[in-house]
Amino acid sequence: MNYRIIISILGRVLAIEAGLLLAPLAVALLYGESGWPFVWTIALTLAAGGGMIALGNKRRGSLRPREGFVSVTLSWVFISAFGALPFVFSGAIPNYISALFEIISGFTTTGASVLPEVESVPKGVLFWRSFSHFVGGMGVLVFMMAVLPTDDEHSMHLLRAEVPGPVKGKLMPKMRGTARTLYYIYVVMTLVEVVLLLFGGLSLFDALTTAFGTAGTGGFGVRNASIGAYDSAYVDVVVGVFMVAFGVNFNLYYIVLVKRSLKGLKSQELWGYLLVVALATVTIALNIVHQYNGILQALRYSFFQVSSIVTTTGFATADFNKWPSYSRATLVLLMLMGACAGSTGGGTKVARLVILCKTIWGEIRQLISPRSVVRVTLDGERLDNAAVRNTMVYYMLYTLFALGSFLLLSLEGYDLETTFTSVISCLSNIGPGLGLVGPTGNFAIWSGPGKLLLSLCMLLGRLEIFPVLTLFAAGFRMKGKK
Amino acid sequence: MNYRIIISILGRVLAIEAGLLLAPLAVALLYGESGWPFVWTIALTLAAGGGMIALGNKRRGSLRPREGFVSVTLSWVFISAFGALPFVFSGAIPNYISALFEIISGFTTTGASVLPEVESVPKGVLFWRSFSHFVGGMGVLVFMMAVLPTDDEHSMHLLRAEVPGPVKGKLMPKMRGTARTLYYIYVVMTLVEVVLLLFGGLSLFDALTTAFGTAGTGGFGVRNASIGAYDSAYVDVVVGVFMVAFGVNFNLYYIVLVKRSLKGLKSQELWGYLLVVALATVTIALNIVHQYNGILQALRYSFFQVSSIVTTTGFATADFNKWPSYSRATLVLLMLMGACAGSTGGGTKVARLVILCKTIWGEIRQLISPRSVVRVTLDGERLDNAAVRNTMVYYMLYTLFALGSFLLLSLEGYDLETTFTSVISCLSNIGPGLGLVGPTGNFAIWSGPGKLLLSLCMLLGRLEIFPVLTLFAAGFRMKGKK
Repeated sequence: MNYRIIISILGRVLAIEAGLLLAPLAVALLYGESGWPFVWTIALTLAAGGGMIALGNKRRGSLRPREGFVSVTLSWVFISAFGALPFVFSGAIPNYISALFEIISGFTTTGASVLPEVESVPKGVLFWRSFSHFVGGMGVLVFMMAVLPTDDEHSMHLLRAEVPGPVKGKLMPKMRGTARTLYYIYVVMTLVEVVLLLFGGLSLFDALTTAFGTAGTGGFGVRNASIGAYDSAYVDVVVGVFMVAFGVNFNLYYIVLVKRSLKGLKSQELWGYLLVVALATVTIALNIVHQYNGILQALRYSFFQVSSIVTTTGFATADFNKWPSYSRATLVLLMLMGACAGSTGGGTKVARLVILCKTIWGEIRQLISPRSVVRVTLDGERLDNAAVRNTMVYYMLYTLFALGSFLLLSLEGYDLETTFTSVISCLSNIGPGLGLVGPTGNFAIWSGPGKLLLSLCMLLGRLEIFPVLTLFAAGFRMKGKK
Repeated sequence: MNYRIIISILGRVLAIEAGLLLAPLAVALLYGESGWPFVWTIALTLAAGGGMIALGNKRRGSLRPREGFVSVTLSWVFISAFGALPFVFSGAIPNYISALFEIISGFTTTGASVLPEVESVPKGVLFWRSFSHFVGGMGVLVFMMAVLPTDDEHSMHLLRAEVPGPVKGKLMPKMRGTARTLYYIYVVMTLVEVVLLLFGGLSLFDALTTAFGTAGTGGFGVRNASIGAYDSAYVDVVVGVFMVAFGVNFNLYYIVLVKRSLKGLKSQELWGYLLVVALATVTIALNIVHQYNGILQALRYSFFQVSSIVTTTGFATADFNKWPSYSRATLVLLMLMGACAGSTGGGTKVARLVILCKTIWGEIRQLISPRSVVRVTLDGERLDNAAVRNTMVYYMLYTLFALGSFLLLSLEGYDLETTFTSVISCLSNIGPGLGLVGPTGNFAIWSGPGKLLLSLCMLLGRLEIFPVLTLFAAGFRMKGKK
């Protein structure tokens, strides 16, 4: 393992974080709040980052896949460890473990919170909290690649570890260019949402933080009642549509907008995703219509919640904990599925579900006619064995981690619905769950070890398990070899 | 599709069922109850079976895998359709759909019941209910192979569809001999349990029905309080140990008892299974000790419940619905795992979990060192790609069916814990769930369509999904071909 190259990457990530912290500092000063929590954090982050850059190796050695995975995982741990400090220094969340949970929830775009209410929290801290969604959404290292000069072999291994989904698009030979283009689309879409929200009567602060929460599919709000606080059908529709849009694979935007080709619209994942959103919206609306004034209002609340949950954002306009069983069950299934691969959304991704269904169907056909040759294809291209197997193993790991964490967390003695949906919500980077962690509850109920376990789930979910496992498995490497 | 050979197999299965119905008829007459419900059922079953034998093709054509799967699935549907009649004719369960649910629950060794109490039900009907566990445990077609002359190519395809587990043991070249030997071990173990239960003070009727429920890992009892009614530590231990024993792969008994080789004891599945039972027993005992008088009593109740749930029997000596979260969560996980492949138990089988864990570990090693060649082995033999893939697809199908049924059943509006554990309980052939279908509840809460859906889950669980799917997929065959 080339430790010095990893240390160098971590140092540069921390330096970037120090730069990003200037934004909430500015907001705090603008609102006449104390800037010290941010100044201290910036100082500490810069000191640590600078030290690590000095210690690390500037010379470009080769970065193998394993080092790429380890760098990405540790980068997320380090930015969280320092990113939690403003919560502690400002007194908003005095307990460091709770603050760590909150910022990991932010960077992983989960949106699960330990705060019982947010309107009394300083604006600068709230801005940092929402901003972490925006930064984490596209990936911290993708950002680094976009702004810093790095060579492409490095970039590839980092990008592979950080961008979600089973199949990485072969977009452009120049990785740095790709990262920049993706960030460009991301920023423009966010700005369009901000403008539309300003038209809806939101303040610039509310519009910005809401757009950050939407873009990263995070879900931290700046109002206690989340998006429901604005009580506006217009805002609901704007945020709902943008959540769905940020849940689409960004490669498709690239193909359609930059390459000006309509090929992107032929994606089977895209249509599967839109079909699920439509089906879930309509059936939930029919299921909840008796709780609202007519079908239109039911559709409004249903669409917003479906788009919020399927994209794993976690904004709320209604207390879906009080919806009937079918609606709650549907939301749990949407939590498990998640959004498209290559989007900012979490979950196990629609692409994997498409691959899964096609593989199963292929297996059944094979079973019926053992002598025929069955091919599994996605978007017209044949899926190789390795991709199918990787998808299966990913699902299995997701399930094992979900069930294992569920078992450990059940030791705290809360009801099984709360316990199970807490785990799923964190592992799929959603935010709210059901029961005590529903839209009106929060994650403060869990003990310190429970919060750390759920933080690990959030990281596993955001980095799609494998990179994090590599970190743990590195020690066993010699044993594994025969 | 060779329909006439399938009709001939179904006819013979019904003729065997008519013969088996003589046993509950004898019990009914012995207790001075009316024999008519059984006489009518036998007459109808014989008429249908005889007609089908006459219609079917006696000549041995070739039986392809697909026809084997279809024959097995339809056999289970047919014996259930006729086996439900004594419940209706006797008035014990007047509604045919409920009666069908009850007997499918019996044959699939699930043990989920619609009866709020059983002590007022006629003895003959109770005997038939418990006897269905014994018949279904080893498989109806395995029994047919044991007693009727059939050629071996036929047998292989039938055996493959009916015996649970990912890897079918290569026991003997003569399938009929294998089936006989397995049934012989099965019957002798059951008789030993009957004798031990008689020593415990049970009546012959109670000892026989309890042993049937244990042997088939079914769980129907003849007392309202299940095994708890006998209130005897001796009975608890005997039944608990025999449940664990019937959850072991019968191939191992064959290897140890008939081949007199200790190789059978080297099975990784066996040790995984025993380890899980031991770990779950100890941790649950520690978790519930405050609800009982001391650790020994806690261990007694914990061991009984763990062995009952992991083997998917479903007997109860305590209301585990009232145990703390950790214990309930552990029981849910044991429900999902189930017993060993090739045993009478249900669930997804320990062997699959072992294959799964080894595959995942192999995948991680591959990820760390992409250039190395990683081999996955089970009991020293290399697992081929097809077996691994089949295991993965099985898990995925199990999950998809579980989640799909969960969604459909949630339309009935019961709480999610009840809804989810009802589905898992049926799909894993366990019996009780949590919430309203816990050990003191029953499945009468579900509507007719709900009961049919859960009946389908029980069949899917018992036949391990693929054979049932073949039935549905047969119609799509031409479409699937290109």
